[in-house]
Amino acid sequence: MRTLDTKNFSVPGYKAWGISSGIKKNEKKDLAIIYSDREAMVAGVFTKNKVKAAPVLLNMAKVKSGRGQVIVANSGCANACTGKRGLADARATAEAAARELNVKPDVVLVASTGVIGEFLPMTKVSTGIATAVGLLSSSGWEQASEAIMTTDIYPKLSIVQEEIGGKIVTVGGIAKGSGMIHPDMATMLCFIVTDAALPTPLLKKSLVASTEQSFHSITVDGEMSTNDMILCMANGAAGNKRIAAGSKELKKFQACLDVVTRSLAKQIVRDGEGATKFVEIEVRNGKNPGEAKRAAMTVAKSSLVKTALFGEDANWGRIMAALGYSGIDFDESRTDITIGKAKLVEKGLGMGKAADREASLALKQREVQIVIDLHKGKGNAIVWTCDLSYEYVKINAAYRS
Amino acid sequence: MRTLDTKNFSVPGYKAWGISSGIKKNEKKDLAIIYSDREAMVAGVFTKNKVKAAPVLLNMAKVKSGRGQVIVANSGCANACTGKRGLADARATAEAAARELNVKPDVVLVASTGVIGEFLPMTKVSTGIATAVGLLSSSGWEQASEAIMTTDIYPKLSIVQEEIGGKIVTVGGIAKGSGMIHPDMATMLCFIVTDAALPTPLLKKSLVASTEQSFHSITVDGEMSTNDMILCMANGAAGNKRIAAGSKELKKFQACLDVVTRSLAKQIVRDGEGATKFVEIEVRNGKNPGEAKRAAMTVAKSSLVKTALFGEDANWGRIMAALGYSGIDFDESRTDITIGKAKLVEKGLGMGKAADREASLALKQREVQIVIDLHKGKGNAIVWTCDLSYEYVKINAAYRS
Repeated sequence: MRTLDTKNFSVPGYKAWGISSGIKKNEKKDLAIIYSDREAMVAGVFTKNKVKAAPVLLNMAKVKSGRGQVIVANSGCANACTGKRGLADARATAEAAARELNVKPDVVLVASTGVIGEFLPMTKVSTGIATAVGLLSSSGWEQASEAIMTTDIYPKLSIVQEEIGGKIVTVGGIAKGSGMIHPDMATMLCFIVTDAALPTPLLKKSLVASTEQSFHSITVDGEMSTNDMILCMANGAAGNKRIAAGSKELKKFQACLDVVTRSLAKQIVRDGEGATKFVEIEVRNGKNPGEAKRAAMTVAKSSLVKTALFGEDANWGRIMAALGYSGIDFDESRTDITIGKAKLVEKGLGMGKAADREASLALKQREVQIVIDLHKGKGNAIVWTCDLSYEYVKINAAYRS
Repeated sequence: MRTLDTKNFSVPGYKAWGISSGIKKNEKKDLAIIYSDREAMVAGVFTKNKVKAAPVLLNMAKVKSGRGQVIVANSGCANACTGKRGLADARATAEAAARELNVKPDVVLVASTGVIGEFLPMTKVSTGIATAVGLLSSSGWEQASEAIMTTDIYPKLSIVQEEIGGKIVTVGGIAKGSGMIHPDMATMLCFIVTDAALPTPLLKKSLVASTEQSFHSITVDGEMSTNDMILCMANGAAGNKRIAAGSKELKKFQACLDVVTRSLAKQIVRDGEGATKFVEIEVRNGKNPGEAKRAAMTVAKSSLVKTALFGEDANWGRIMAALGYSGIDFDESRTDITIGKAKLVEKGLGMGKAADREASLALKQREVQIVIDLHKGKGNAIVWTCDLSYEYVKINAAYRS
């Protein structure tokens, strides 16, 4: 497998672009289109929030066909909590793109992110779609990735290539998300495209597995949004023999997808609202992998742990307290905690001032690794999070103004 | 029922005091003793955190007897994650107080709050107990309440009187807590004393019910501590006939207890770390009371809702998103949201700019009321929380330094 420079992002058979259509007031890009030159297999993973935005509801119905060709995504307006009018607007968006691209509306998927409770400015959207379609380019992915940003500081792209079944297959993805990130996906959009040929059920299965070890393993603030989705299109332009279940080709494809989704997920954490640190939390030897992940996520979500990380304070008591309310089965008296290379806690007890000092030095780095060994079973999990800073509060106190 | 001025806090048969014993480095009060002049019935509610501090473990065993007479509480050190030595220290604390007060160690309960993972300085604790015992006074409650403070800004007391069974019965309580407050009780200590006579099982039942509508209905940051406990002693000094199950006397006693616990719980929220606003969240017409409470607590805990409150932004989309991931059964299209007197959302849709402006005015107040009507069933719940400010991050980033 080869990781490509995102400057050269291009996937055979696909074009993309992003423009400013006027949905955002600040003239920043706010409308992206992704287009496959032929119908593709498509799979989606959607927010579990009971309050689902109109584009989520629309896509959930559309991906059942397993076919897709176009994605229209806007930022600046979430089209959530907008009732029947919102759903009609999402449909009209798909229809406008279908007309411009001469495809059936059924294969056009839509996505939105931004403020909840406001209606899409449909005239701007229609005009914007016509403009963006005219600019579609096989190298337009940076523009597309910028057009889906909200509070993101930088665009997020990842692309790899691998020989699969004698052909070079490319898997590339773009994503947005910074605040409100949570397992079960929150305010994040991710669009992955590949020229691999594989049947929809396999694509769906691969995407779900890949999501688990990437987007479902990160948290910024424990929120879950109304708009999140991951869409993956596979158009077969690579000309490989259709990948079969249980094959070594499928394993290779899965590995590519995993690298792309994990890279994008980590980029989202690095771009966490107000984040000053990127934190990896590994739980070893939990009762089982599920319990290990639950423990890791509970620590990762704790406001007290996250403010201590921001303060560069090796306050391991807060980690123990979070483990204690995570609901997992473990013994305090068997638990070890390491920050960086400093073993802070052994068998549930603090190792003293020298270890504290060493851990505090590790916490001064931009990247921090915390390892919690429960010595309970054989379940392991790794999750990624960031610290909780003044900036997080500032960004979110003023988001709409 | 009559609410007394806490300046005149006094409960027949009880004495209290609080001193600086040197556990805290800043010479602030850190050791409190509460003493009943006769053995009392005792009931306790303890943290559900799996990692329990030594005093919690010790008390959980002790209250099984239903008898208690003394509470020794310290701040500045949590005596949590301290293993066997911590448990021995908790026992030694109880024994020291038993010697000084000439009671059996079995009736001495202990409590600690402060930094996790450090050992109690036992010489200071023993000397402090001797000093505090010498100062015990029927009017020493403010001193006691100050001695259990950590990041609290002010001490918390509440006291009421009521005629029960022809006698004047007094119920008074002190509490500490500001950060890490969560339903299921987190880093809070509450000690309630009454001169009522009632059997332990009734006392326990009353305390559990009272906790549900008070300490389990507040949240500051969604954390759950290793040290939380509520202890309630009833020494019968009022001379009332023992209160019986199902009696109108029990109802009166419960009402007194509820007023005291609810007052203390609200004081804890008002003192939330960095809080600038006191927020009441009421959910009406949920499927049942449990779902209404779950919905209210999810909204109350949302970092995005709390930062919007701090920013005085009527961002109701974040309330809808939180309801959506709360896991309750409801219909977005039947949901109304009101902030202050401004109806912001009707049947799931925003009511426009005028309502937004009116709600923003309501959000500028120190006290904010949010009502969410789900129009689903008949379950209601009220919870209290505060906003999330820069100060919260600041306090918790620097807590140990």
